[in-house]
Amino acid sequence: MPTTLISKLACPMPVEQEDVIQMAHGGGGLKMARLIERHFLPLLQNEALAQLGDGGVVEFGPSRLAVSTDSFVVSPPFFPGGDIGSLAVHGTVNDLAMCGAEPLALSAALILEEGFRKSDLDRIIASLASAAAAVKVPVVTGDTKVVERAKGDGIYITTTGLGHVRHGVNPGPDRAMPGDCILVSGPIGDHGMAIMAARHDLTFDPPLCSDSATVLPAIRQLLSAFPDDVHVLRDPTRGGLATALCEIAEASRVTIGIDESAVPTRPEVRAACELLGFDPLYVACEGRFIAIVSEKSAERALRIVRETEIGCAAVQIGVVEGTDTARVLLTTRIGSHRRLERISGEQLPRIC
Amino acid sequence: MPTTLISKLACPMPVEQEDVIQMAHGGGGLKMARLIERHFLPLLQNEALAQLGDGGVVEFGPSRLAVSTDSFVVSPPFFPGGDIGSLAVHGTVNDLAMCGAEPLALSAALILEEGFRKSDLDRIIASLASAAAAVKVPVVTGDTKVVERAKGDGIYITTTGLGHVRHGVNPGPDRAMPGDCILVSGPIGDHGMAIMAARHDLTFDPPLCSDSATVLPAIRQLLSAFPDDVHVLRDPTRGGLATALCEIAEASRVTIGIDESAVPTRPEVRAACELLGFDPLYVACEGRFIAIVSEKSAERALRIVRETEIGCAAVQIGVVEGTDTARVLLTTRIGSHRRLERISGEQLPRIC
Repeated sequence: MPTTLISKLACPMPVEQEDVIQMAHGGGGLKMARLIERHFLPLLQNEALAQLGDGGVVEFGPSRLAVSTDSFVVSPPFFPGGDIGSLAVHGTVNDLAMCGAEPLALSAALILEEGFRKSDLDRIIASLASAAAAVKVPVVTGDTKVVERAKGDGIYITTTGLGHVRHGVNPGPDRAMPGDCILVSGPIGDHGMAIMAARHDLTFDPPLCSDSATVLPAIRQLLSAFPDDVHVLRDPTRGGLATALCEIAEASRVTIGIDESAVPTRPEVRAACELLGFDPLYVACEGRFIAIVSEKSAERALRIVRETEIGCAAVQIGVVEGTDTARVLLTTRIGSHRRLERISGEQLPRIC
Repeated sequence: MPTTLISKLACPMPVEQEDVIQMAHGGGGLKMARLIERHFLPLLQNEALAQLGDGGVVEFGPSRLAVSTDSFVVSPPFFPGGDIGSLAVHGTVNDLAMCGAEPLALSAALILEEGFRKSDLDRIIASLASAAAAVKVPVVTGDTKVVERAKGDGIYITTTGLGHVRHGVNPGPDRAMPGDCILVSGPIGDHGMAIMAARHDLTFDPPLCSDSATVLPAIRQLLSAFPDDVHVLRDPTRGGLATALCEIAEASRVTIGIDESAVPTRPEVRAACELLGFDPLYVACEGRFIAIVSEKSAERALRIVRETEIGCAAVQIGVVEGTDTARVLLTTRIGSHRRLERISGEQLPRIC
């Protein structure tokens, strides 16, 4: 009998799948939202965090400062259209832009895996530096940690951005109002499919290329012209356009109507999605934004975005319809209606 | 012949040890300094970064804002005296304090390994939240990424702190002046040896316990009393007291004289160091600071630090002797002299 008891004790406790972190908890969808809502928010509660925006905003005297952070774990670190270095700058600068903030400074913290080639590190740092210089934001501080082989994956970069929220500007996921127009700054899904192709060595013709870029110049123009009429800004990264719109619909408690045929996608991205079984609405972008703008300013807003380098293909894809239910309704190409839900699991792990 | 050629081409290029990242590049010593100086600074150059302080300081109107970032990869994540959650707050808040800054906000970015237990995550987040609440700094934004098994190690946390540098306060590693007194806030080496013992399941009596704590209250008192007489503040983390002093000596171009018998160490830490072959001068602390203070204020500064919870064992350990050579000279217990160098490799990987 004692033997049985000891062997029972020595046996490791069975760990249910539910009790451990799964890849889907990093997918940007429902599982991640639940993790944040149940495991992080109750303990860390404060107004800025509870907003769940792309960054947190804090008061500083008469000013408002935005802080945004992201760990980049993209695999592979080099991909057509960019690499983890430029992505780490674009991602965080774009998040600040989504808060209506002008970036003041960036920090970069590296977790390197033992054995990572210095030549690859040099390429990545050069790319990070050049992306930061292009938006004139200095990297004012950093950190370097090294972990043993098989405790990392070459390089992970965490960038944090500090920005100054423009006076009179207050975009927020909870500010979408009936009648507002939903604009998207360009074709969706490029980044996710480019990573997918690079990871699995798939070749497409024309080749897939990430849209990794800063949207800051376009946001600057937009907010200068309409400081108050830009109600919501969001970059559709993990979880894609559909998940971002669902989050906005929930935060604003509105019904959002989207016209599938108006959503811009490149033919090669559509083809790759069809081949691999992805829905472009759920595939991440890294150089696009959604702007929800009051009806009266929408047309001019679109013209302004189209004049910028990254926004030449900007279009309106839908409207905020009403306040009856928090939901996103897609009118499909054949005219039927389909309710969009947040991404639940994850289709594309480690795309950023 | 063609066969030979093909087999040569198919053979992977030999990668020299010199060409890849080694554990020592994260050790906080000479190798890390070289990596930063040669591979990061030339590309990312700006005044704030070049200071190589515990954080970067940027001007914002008439104010100065400090930004500090650190990735925490400590192994094991739970250790006597703390865990990775509280450490991630203490480390970054202490770095802000070393810049003379009052923390305004923190961000936290998590890289979780697939399979990490949610119950462990909950303990860590609770600890992080409670450490942040204790210093009244909100965690205003965050990020969660998940990587596959064997691409991480349970949990890595990158915290970034934003702080407001007090008016009239300007500590910097280049401000040590001949005649200045070198104070240390308490016994050194506790954290590193506690991690070492926890990692290798070594038991000491009395047990080793990390000093992980915030030094912010003591720094507040010190800077209120002597805004201008506190010339240098530094927390001796990776590389320990010796490396921190070497960095200061180089930045200020001064000779620092240290009296070994005055350097406080707990008997149990000394014993563990002797047993395992470590020099306590190179073992990391996570709740201590070095303050280099003008001679006229040193005695009162010491009294002020001693009145705080973490500083009751504060002592003077040496003086800034002259400006002839940038070096640190230790007077040993037996009266001989020894020049201290920065840590070169790394004795204790992943201690923070």
